Amino acid sequence: MSISVGLLGLGTVGSHVYRLLADQQMIAERAGGPVQIRRVAVTDLRKERDATVSRDLLTDDARAVIHAPDVDIIVEVIGGQDPAGRYVQEALEARKPVVTANKQLMAASGGELLMLAERCGVDLCFEGSVGAGIPLIKPIRESLAGARLRAVTGVLNGTTNYILTRMATEGRSYQDALAEAQRRGFAEANPAEDVEGRDAAAKLAILASAAFNVNLHGSQVFCEGIERISLKDLAYARELGFAVKLLAVARDHGEEIEARVHPALVPLNHPLAAVHDEFNAVYVEGDGLGPVLFSGRGAGGAPTAAAVVGDIIDVARHLRLGVGGRSRPAIHRITRVRPMEDAVLPYYLSVQLLDRPGVFARVAAVFGEEGVSIASIVQKSRGEFADAVFVTHDAAERGMRRVLRRLRELDVVKSVANCVRVEATL
Amino acid sequence: MSISVGLLGLGTVGSHVYRLLADQQMIAERAGGPVQIRRVAVTDLRKERDATVSRDLLTDDARAVIHAPDVDIIVEVIGGQDPAGRYVQEALEARKPVVTANKQLMAASGGELLMLAERCGVDLCFEGSVGAGIPLIKPIRESLAGARLRAVTGVLNGTTNYILTRMATEGRSYQDALAEAQRRGFAEANPAEDVEGRDAAAKLAILASAAFNVNLHGSQVFCEGIERISLKDLAYARELGFAVKLLAVARDHGEEIEARVHPALVPLNHPLAAVHDEFNAVYVEGDGLGPVLFSGRGAGGAPTAAAVVGDIIDVARHLRLGVGGRSRPAIHRITRVRPMEDAVLPYYLSVQLLDRPGVFARVAAVFGEEGVSIASIVQKSRGEFADAVFVTHDAAERGMRRVLRRLRELDVVKSVANCVRVEATL
Repeated sequence: MSISVGLLGLGTVGSHVYRLLADQQMIAERAGGPVQIRRVAVTDLRKERDATVSRDLLTDDARAVIHAPDVDIIVEVIGGQDPAGRYVQEALEARKPVVTANKQLMAASGGELLMLAERCGVDLCFEGSVGAGIPLIKPIRESLAGARLRAVTGVLNGTTNYILTRMATEGRSYQDALAEAQRRGFAEANPAEDVEGRDAAAKLAILASAAFNVNLHGSQVFCEGIERISLKDLAYARELGFAVKLLAVARDHGEEIEARVHPALVPLNHPLAAVHDEFNAVYVEGDGLGPVLFSGRGAGGAPTAAAVVGDIIDVARHLRLGVGGRSRPAIHRITRVRPMEDAVLPYYLSVQLLDRPGVFARVAAVFGEEGVSIASIVQKSRGEFADAVFVTHDAAERGMRRVLRRLRELDVVKSVANCVRVEATL
Repeated sequence: MSISVGLLGLGTVGSHVYRLLADQQMIAERAGGPVQIRRVAVTDLRKERDATVSRDLLTDDARAVIHAPDVDIIVEVIGGQDPAGRYVQEALEARKPVVTANKQLMAASGGELLMLAERCGVDLCFEGSVGAGIPLIKPIRESLAGARLRAVTGVLNGTTNYILTRMATEGRSYQDALAEAQRRGFAEANPAEDVEGRDAAAKLAILASAAFNVNLHGSQVFCEGIERISLKDLAYARELGFAVKLLAVARDHGEEIEARVHPALVPLNHPLAAVHDEFNAVYVEGDGLGPVLFSGRGAGGAPTAAAVVGDIIDVARHLRLGVGGRSRPAIHRITRVRPMEDAVLPYYLSVQLLDRPGVFARVAAVFGEEGVSIASIVQKSRGEFADAVFVTHDAAERGMRRVLRRLRELDVVKSVANCVRVEATL
C-alpha cells in the first residue's frame, strides 16, 4: 500500500519537501512503505519551477487536491491564515490527516483545529510550525510526558537575536544591525512582525499550548518589541552581568498561564544568554526534570521541510497501522491568561538625572514609596546630567508602572531612557 | 482497561518511577487510561523503604513478575548487564513490552534486543538509557526522520565535564577536581568508567545506532580518557582558542561508521565548548537540517524516571491501540567501524624541547617528513627547556603516531607532554 500526499504550496518549504520525498528508499524504510506526492496545488501554474517538479502533478485547484480520493495526507505549506486555514479545516472535515508548518494558523486556531482533528479521527501534525528543524512539539508532548512541565522560556526569533547580537558584539546601532540582517536574509523588508515580537508570541503560544495542555492563542501573549533597546542599555546590562535577549516566557501557575514576549536581561551565565546570531533556543523546566535545552537554527526552508517530512512519516505510519487521530488526544485544561499588570519580576531602569546633590535621594524615595526595592545601581556622571541605572528586586509590574509615571513627572529627571524586564528566575 | 506495570528494581530511578506513576490523573490523561504498578521485584525484601511503597507489591522473584498474567509492561531499572539482560530478553520472549533505562545493556546488545522485540511484536523503549531527562532517542529516531543524519557529537559524561570545567575555570589539579566531583556526588568512588571514557562510549553507541540505523556496540567505540589532560594543556588550548572536552563523535561515512570518545580541543565559539560542569549536550547534524543541539543535566534519578515514564506512556498507548512493536522497526544497515588509525583530524601536540638554536628546525622536519602540516605554534621558553605547542592541519592518525614515536627518539626532545585530537569540523 502506497501512501499518497497532496501538497498545498510549492514555495521554499514546499520545494524542499518535494525533494526530500523523492528519496523514496529512505522514506519507505522509515514510513514502513512507499510515500509519494500525488498532486501539488500552486497559485500560478505558469510560474517557472525547478525542473525536478513533475508538471503533470500541478494544479491550481487546492480543493480538488484535498478531496481527491487518491490523496491520503494533506501537507499544507502555503502559510498565513487564509486560505490555508480553510484548506486545513476542509481537509480534516474530509477525514484527511494534515501536516502543516503554518505558525500563524496554529497560533491563531491550533487548539480548535486539534479538537476538530480529534473529532474527525485524523492526525494533525505541526512540528515545522516552530523552530524549523529543531524538534520541539513532539519531544515536549511525548518525550517529556512523564513530567509536569512548569515553564517554557525561549529565544524564538532569529531576526531580533541577530540584531541584538550585532549591537552587543560590534556596537552597531539598531538601524544598522537591522539593515545588515536584511542584507543577509535574516530579516524581511518589513520587519515589524519580528522586531515587535509578534512572531515570537505566535511560537510561544504554540509551545505553551503543547507543554501545558492548554489552548493559548498568539493574541493572548503579552508582546513588546526590541525597538527601544539602545547600545547604552546593552553596555549597562553587561556591566551588571546580563545579556539582553528578546525573551519568550510561559509559566504554568495552575489556574493561570503567564505568557509574555519582551526584551529581557538574562544572566550572562545562563544558557539562553549564549544563544547568538540567528539561532533559536527553547529552555523547558518541569517537576523533577531539570532544565532541558533545545537549540539550533530556527528558520529556513530545508530544515522546516525536514520537520514536515518527519511528520509525514509519522502520519503515514499511523495510517498503515489504522490508528490515525488517536496518537495523542488534545486534552485542553481550561485556564486563564495572567494579565501583564500582575507579573512580578525584577526590572532594569535607565534614567537621566540632573547631576546635583539630593537628586538621587528624591529618585530613590519614589521607588521606596511604591514598594519597589532596589538590588543594584550604576551611576555615571556625564557633565550636567548623570545616567542612573537601577535593577530592582522582584516588583509588581503595576508598581513599576507607577514608579515610571512618577519619575517622568520629577523635575530632576531629564528622561526615563528605558525600562526592561529582568529574567532572574531562570 | 487498566494497564499494569511490573517494575524490576526499586533503586533511585525505580523509586522515582513509582512516585511519578502515583500521579494517576496525569498519567491516565496522557496514557489514554489508567496505568498502575502491579508488582515490584527487589533483591532484598527486608531492606528499609520509602513508606509510600506498598509492601504487598514487593517480591524478590523477578521472573514471577515477568510472567505474571496480570502484568502488561515490564520496566527494567536494575541496571547492569546481568541479570537485567536476561530479564529483558525473557520479557520480550514472553511478548511483554519493555521499558528500560539500562545504558550498559543497550550499548552491549541494544541491536539484538530491538530485533528480538520486533520478532516478538512488542515495544522496547530506552529513552532513559542516555542523557537522563534530555529527550534524545525519540527525537533522533522520529522527529528527525525527515533528514539523513550524518554526525552526532556530544559531551556525554557529566563527571569528566565537571572535572575539566573545574580545572579550566579554577586551576584545580585533576586529582583535586576529581575529589570535589566525588564529594558533590558527580563521580563514583571508583571513577574509572567515567574518566576512561567508557560511559560516554556506551552512550555514543546507543545514539549513533539510533541516528544512523546501525547496530553499533559500545565496545566498538574507540575510547581514551581524560587522565593525561594537564592544567598546562588547558591553558595552551585556551590561548589557541579552544576548550578541552571529553568529546564523543560519531559520523556516518556510508560504508563505514566513525565512532570515538577522547579528549578534544573544541573551538571556544562552538556551542559544545559552552557546556559546563555536570551538563551534557548532543549536537546532531544532517543533510539540509542545520545543527540541532539538545542539552541538560545528563544524570539523576528523577529526570531518568521522567524519561522512563514518558516511555511507559508511549507503550501503554500502543497497547491500547493494539499496535505494540510496530511503531518503528529496527532496520539495521550493515556497516563497519572505521579503525582509529584511519581517522583524519588536526592534532594538538605539546612537547618539551631543549632551548637551543636549531632544535626547532629538527622538530619541524619530523612533521614535514611524515606529511603532517602545522597550522599554529606557541613556544614558551622556561630556562633550559622550552614548551612547544603545535596544532596541525588535518593529519592521518597513522602519520601522527609516527611523528610522536620519532619525536620521543630525538635527543633534543625532553618529553612529549601530551597529544590531543582537535575537533575543528564542528
